Amino acid sequence: MEIKVNQGILSSNERTALENKKVFDENGLFVINIMGSPGAGKTTVLEKTIDILVNSVKLGVIEGDIYTSKDAQRIEKHGVPVKQINTGGACHLDAGMVSKVLTDFRLSEIELLVIENVGNLVCPVEFNLGEDIKIAVLSITEGDDKPMKYPLIFRESRAVILNKVDLIDFTDVDMNSLRTDIKRINPKIEIFEVSARTGQGINEWSRWLLEKVKDKNVKNAVN
Amino acid sequence: MEIKVNQGILSSNERTALENKKVFDENGLFVINIMGSPGAGKTTVLEKTIDILVNSVKLGVIEGDIYTSKDAQRIEKHGVPVKQINTGGACHLDAGMVSKVLTDFRLSEIELLVIENVGNLVCPVEFNLGEDIKIAVLSITEGDDKPMKYPLIFRESRAVILNKVDLIDFTDVDMNSLRTDIKRINPKIEIFEVSARTGQGINEWSRWLLEKVKDKNVKNAVN
Repeated sequence: MEIKVNQGILSSNERTALENKKVFDENGLFVINIMGSPGAGKTTVLEKTIDILVNSVKLGVIEGDIYTSKDAQRIEKHGVPVKQINTGGACHLDAGMVSKVLTDFRLSEIELLVIENVGNLVCPVEFNLGEDIKIAVLSITEGDDKPMKYPLIFRESRAVILNKVDLIDFTDVDMNSLRTDIKRINPKIEIFEVSARTGQGINEWSRWLLEKVKDKNVKNAVN
Repeated sequence: MEIKVNQGILSSNERTALENKKVFDENGLFVINIMGSPGAGKTTVLEKTIDILVNSVKLGVIEGDIYTSKDAQRIEKHGVPVKQINTGGACHLDAGMVSKVLTDFRLSEIELLVIENVGNLVCPVEFNLGEDIKIAVLSITEGDDKPMKYPLIFRESRAVILNKVDLIDFTDVDMNSLRTDIKRINPKIEIFEVSARTGQGINEWSRWLLEKVKDKNVKNAVN
């Protein structure tokens, strides 16, 4: 006999996500959940973003990976507190995994917590972690058909970083079609064209993110 | 109350996979399950492979996708029978989904059935479909750290196609390190360096695949 309990599992995750959100809000933390395919460039974008923001905002990072701590080691070199979560096989982080590592941070000393999810364009988006916003990273080398094929991540994200635009001339990607499809799925989404490798567009994206962090801080101060 | 039934679900899939395998064997079909990240180039590799093999072997294709039939439409243009499976959200095909579309094919008229799985480096590998071999497609633009981060797909695959090698000079990828890590995970795996865009390496990979198909046909004839 098989018993389908997907609904129950999701609700349990949703409850823990709300508890995480409460902890984040009480500590005045702005939290982003970065999602994207393996190799979209999530960690490299994050490294470049940290280098720009590190003097303006107090950062913390949670790295999600199935088995290794390669990404956490890369982030550590940039001098920000980082904790690794290994899912041991699971294709996404869940709110409970995030909850468990929160005690490892001095949360009151952090203003922006970045959670880099497991590399996957499908599963992570279905599991809220308590974050303020979701961010999608898509490498343009993945092809311009991806938004229509994997719409949920674009529907749920507040911004999408189109990475590796330095490779545009060597691909058959139609950037207009890519942007149009993304906006069709989510008209309110912000689109940043970026090359984490050359640094192109990283400033613009980082400024936008910094404004979101400050907005939340202002709101917290008023309340 | 939550009841964990993962084990039961896997076993049920395994049972259906064995039933599929029996149908494939009875019809003398060689079946491959192609897996890889979104945008690794699975469909483009398949299109180029079909063009080479179409006169040597009778082909059929099953396209797995979450919502769209974009890939099936691309394959259809190459004049081979193709069926689309939409998972409606799930991040992988399972044996039951494949079983349901098998009756849409004239199986006795097919020698090579290609199943292109949902774009995902994690979930598909855990669900056998009844295939003879699994094939991994990894775009080199995804980075040389991917095998150690997502080892299971490389452990379970009989061959890996390293696609988009025409972009190698525009990335920081270390091909030696990439090959070494893959061989460390699976010493018996075949590695093909390919550019589906330029056609580089497609011949070599297609010849290898054709030999596998013929091997199975010979065995069937002997038994």
